[in-house]
Amino acid sequence: MNDKQEQLNNLRHSTAHLLAAAVMELWPDTLRTIGPSIDNGFYFDFEFKKPVSEEDLPKIEAKMAEILKTWTSFEREEVSKEEALKRYEGNPYKIELINEFSDQGQTLTFYKSGNYEDLCRGGHSENPSQDLGAFKLLSIAGAYWRGSEKNKMLTRIYGTAFPTKQELEDHLNMLEEAKKRDHKKLGKELDLFVFSDLVGGGLPLWTPKGTLVRELLDNFVWQLRKAKGYQKVEIPHITKRELYEASGHWDKFKNELFKITTREGHEFAMKPMNCPHHTQIFKRMPMSYRDLPQRYANTTMVYRDEQSGELAGLSRVRCITQDDAHVFCRYDQIKEEIGNVYSIVKDFYSAFGFELSLRLSLRDPKHPENYLGQDAQWESTQSQLEEFLKDNHLDYAEGIGEAAFYGPKIDFMTKDSLGRTWQVATIQLDVNMPQRFDLSYANQEGKQEVVAMVHAAVMGSIERFMSILIEHYAGAFPTWLAPVQVMIIPITERNNDYGQKLLDGLKDKNIRAELDTNPETMQAKIRVAQLQKIPYMIIIGDREQSADQISVRTRDGKTLELNNFGDFLSHLDKEVEAKS
Amino acid sequence: MNDKQEQLNNLRHSTAHLLAAAVMELWPDTLRTIGPSIDNGFYFDFEFKKPVSEEDLPKIEAKMAEILKTWTSFEREEVSKEEALKRYEGNPYKIELINEFSDQGQTLTFYKSGNYEDLCRGGHSENPSQDLGAFKLLSIAGAYWRGSEKNKMLTRIYGTAFPTKQELEDHLNMLEEAKKRDHKKLGKELDLFVFSDLVGGGLPLWTPKGTLVRELLDNFVWQLRKAKGYQKVEIPHITKRELYEASGHWDKFKNELFKITTREGHEFAMKPMNCPHHTQIFKRMPMSYRDLPQRYANTTMVYRDEQSGELAGLSRVRCITQDDAHVFCRYDQIKEEIGNVYSIVKDFYSAFGFELSLRLSLRDPKHPENYLGQDAQWESTQSQLEEFLKDNHLDYAEGIGEAAFYGPKIDFMTKDSLGRTWQVATIQLDVNMPQRFDLSYANQEGKQEVVAMVHAAVMGSIERFMSILIEHYAGAFPTWLAPVQVMIIPITERNNDYGQKLLDGLKDKNIRAELDTNPETMQAKIRVAQLQKIPYMIIIGDREQSADQISVRTRDGKTLELNNFGDFLSHLDKEVEAKS
Repeated sequence: MNDKQEQLNNLRHSTAHLLAAAVMELWPDTLRTIGPSIDNGFYFDFEFKKPVSEEDLPKIEAKMAEILKTWTSFEREEVSKEEALKRYEGNPYKIELINEFSDQGQTLTFYKSGNYEDLCRGGHSENPSQDLGAFKLLSIAGAYWRGSEKNKMLTRIYGTAFPTKQELEDHLNMLEEAKKRDHKKLGKELDLFVFSDLVGGGLPLWTPKGTLVRELLDNFVWQLRKAKGYQKVEIPHITKRELYEASGHWDKFKNELFKITTREGHEFAMKPMNCPHHTQIFKRMPMSYRDLPQRYANTTMVYRDEQSGELAGLSRVRCITQDDAHVFCRYDQIKEEIGNVYSIVKDFYSAFGFELSLRLSLRDPKHPENYLGQDAQWESTQSQLEEFLKDNHLDYAEGIGEAAFYGPKIDFMTKDSLGRTWQVATIQLDVNMPQRFDLSYANQEGKQEVVAMVHAAVMGSIERFMSILIEHYAGAFPTWLAPVQVMIIPITERNNDYGQKLLDGLKDKNIRAELDTNPETMQAKIRVAQLQKIPYMIIIGDREQSADQISVRTRDGKTLELNNFGDFLSHLDKEVEAKS
Repeated sequence: MNDKQEQLNNLRHSTAHLLAAAVMELWPDTLRTIGPSIDNGFYFDFEFKKPVSEEDLPKIEAKMAEILKTWTSFEREEVSKEEALKRYEGNPYKIELINEFSDQGQTLTFYKSGNYEDLCRGGHSENPSQDLGAFKLLSIAGAYWRGSEKNKMLTRIYGTAFPTKQELEDHLNMLEEAKKRDHKKLGKELDLFVFSDLVGGGLPLWTPKGTLVRELLDNFVWQLRKAKGYQKVEIPHITKRELYEASGHWDKFKNELFKITTREGHEFAMKPMNCPHHTQIFKRMPMSYRDLPQRYANTTMVYRDEQSGELAGLSRVRCITQDDAHVFCRYDQIKEEIGNVYSIVKDFYSAFGFELSLRLSLRDPKHPENYLGQDAQWESTQSQLEEFLKDNHLDYAEGIGEAAFYGPKIDFMTKDSLGRTWQVATIQLDVNMPQRFDLSYANQEGKQEVVAMVHAAVMGSIERFMSILIEHYAGAFPTWLAPVQVMIIPITERNNDYGQKLLDGLKDKNIRAELDTNPETMQAKIRVAQLQKIPYMIIIGDREQSADQISVRTRDGKTLELNNFGDFLSHLDKEVEAKS
């Protein structure tokens, strides 16, 4: 954690104290529990004697602002167990914590600001009345004491806080915007996917429009891969248990595996990943050094037995479409193959305006026992990753000890148009699976050597990437990705035939277009097309028809400076080609 | 069964008697059991006192020919149970049969030719010495008495027989050819697919070459469908039990369903078909008469819990890739939609030289209780199918009572290059599922009407179609389908660079080409390319290189009459375009 993040956490934790102080002044019989900082804010859990609701939040905020004026510092005080218990008489939550901390031999500390004090390990702003103030209470939710449903349900108040009013405002605007862009809401409005109660949660069904977008994305990845010599393979979604015993997934994925017992009593599982199947394709015949690299690409669904409560739209599903790829190569080919994957990842993400930041995850050299494989393999793989990054003058952060147990990796992070950070792709080197499955090739001397394996998904999960993309664009996909690229809007019924002629012309050029012949006004038709976020509308009335011309309007209400149909086709062609 | 088939069965059953007669003369202590005619031949099961092997077959055949001369008729004789038991004293198999037939009240009959007689229900040639003679014993296998593994293992001798020597010879040649063309053998030699013991039986893994052929076939179907207004959709491979309870598949597919219990205890199943999922996409929003037809295409894998003993290469698998499609339409649209599917099916199969014969399966009007749906629906659907066939002057056979319980259908049959008949596609009308799932639309008056559903897979199972296609072509795919279309063969190492230049030129034109730079002789390289059934070989030596020309050889050893690279590209282009 860096200093800036630590200061922000202190600020938020301090604001949680302030929230509790206000609550205790407003409803003195309330029982306080805990109030930590979290990602993007803080919360505090209370047992209220009478229910509070989100309508009470402004009142609490006002009290917080009033109290804040009196808070000039956080004063630390060490207290004995007896003294601590005395101060929280009648509060079973705090008593439980005091006993626990004390049993662990921890020093018990209280922090006091103004008239408010609380049991706390510390981590506060130095000058609260000056530093705090840009805060907002966001919502109220139920939460079990210590997260266990066996305990009492408490009331949790969520809030956020920032160093400046401007940052707070930006964040609140972002939250508002994110709500509008929610992919679950847009997915329905734009008719991209649907969930069915009969099919079940976490199992999206893809409509024609959604399927088209998925396919365009997947084809884009494939074009990039094809240029680097990848080949497609195909595999079933199930396997005998034996494959996962050999790969180690039977134990590792135990809870998340969908398991099947056949009518003959054999144990099968649905695949939670594709690498073990791909190893069996590699192993189908003896390979020589001349046959490597073998680069297998395979867009296919994997299945994970997620718990119902964890499912969320497309972000967390039970059926994940992976645009997966595995490269089986010699150790001396790793650097080049990593370079290929990087180039694919970069070209793909930059088409959406995503800038990538990189993180190199290495093993902890002090604890070689935590990792599989020999030192020489790790030295070779790590140094090839490092060399690749340095040769290409790429900025990256280094994470010592963050490698997977089976090999080092490069993670790619990006920010979407709302400034939210996402991990979007990973290049993982694997020295484990080739050994487990004895994947080898005959070198120039005819001796068998073990191969290296590169895991190289680009989108990773198409579902999750779609959820990011829908929210990133607020549903207004760029023209190359838009399910319908052009809507033709005749002003009167007289212009429908001319519209049909234009439609045929667009379809001839493989443009995805529709003609709106509904008996509605032009304005109503425009509104429908805008709600569908269709990039272009061709508006045609008698004037356009008699001159054999068109008027073109964009979804954000601008008019294109052209009225020749051929010019519009060229305009579209360039835009689609450039993926802009 | 028609007369011709009955005569052939009689001929084969008579030859089975002849086989038994020869065996009993050669090894009189043998116990006879039964000897029926089967598809393409006959068998007879014996308990031999000392083992016989396939090496004994010529000796048996010779004895059969010798005995046949004495067989001028089959004489029928009715015998009492006591007499029958006496004639088979010491033969527990015949005694079991006699007791059983007699318990069922059957008349016991013996048939006698020459010196040989046997318990038999009849069905013989009238003049054996004249009619029989074109026979051949094929193989020996173990077979349990009455097919139960609890019984004794007997020795089964298989044979075949035809009315003429010529027909027998043709059949034996076909068997020989079929063995060479066996898709399991060719699939490995051409590196199209592989099975892994760790993944399990009936679960093919598709190599790069096999995946390419699958994709080319699927894209071909898609191009034909796209022209008819189909749209792709995508669905997960599992569902909650509830979907199949609603559709009726939970009961109907009980044994073949791969079932899953989630960690939360919910019951799921892997899909054995796609229609129920597709209904949920149709149902995602209210549909009006203007929205129909909805045509959903979806190439996706379905799963069936086949028993290990029934699995056979790609012909019978547990993981079936269906090029599935469902059309949801108004009743007045059925005829046109059927026409679309027919046109797709015809265009697809004729590209491979498959001629289709049609069979219209209708309900039995005497037993309306065997079918779902109202009379009016059946009249509408059946008459639209019939009208379509008549309007288009299509020959078809009619199968009264052969409709599915949920609707009438048209089946398509074809013959492959070995003359074997395959059922290759089906158009099924479904009045059941729309009712079960309440699939309706608002008609012009705003009233809800139920839709009709058309099931319209083209290949059906890509795995099974691939097995047919591999054997049909003996692995020598037409150029548009060949995984590698051109192999460039430099005569010496000096010509490798020129070969690389040609390779780049081919790849620029999206031709799938490879360059063989292995240090082998030209003859050896040609042999490799021929074994891989690559349609074209470009042979280049110093002479071609210095003249900037090429020599082109086909896989069947012919030389193309061209030596200009550009001309060859045009030649390829035309051939691929025409799918010839």
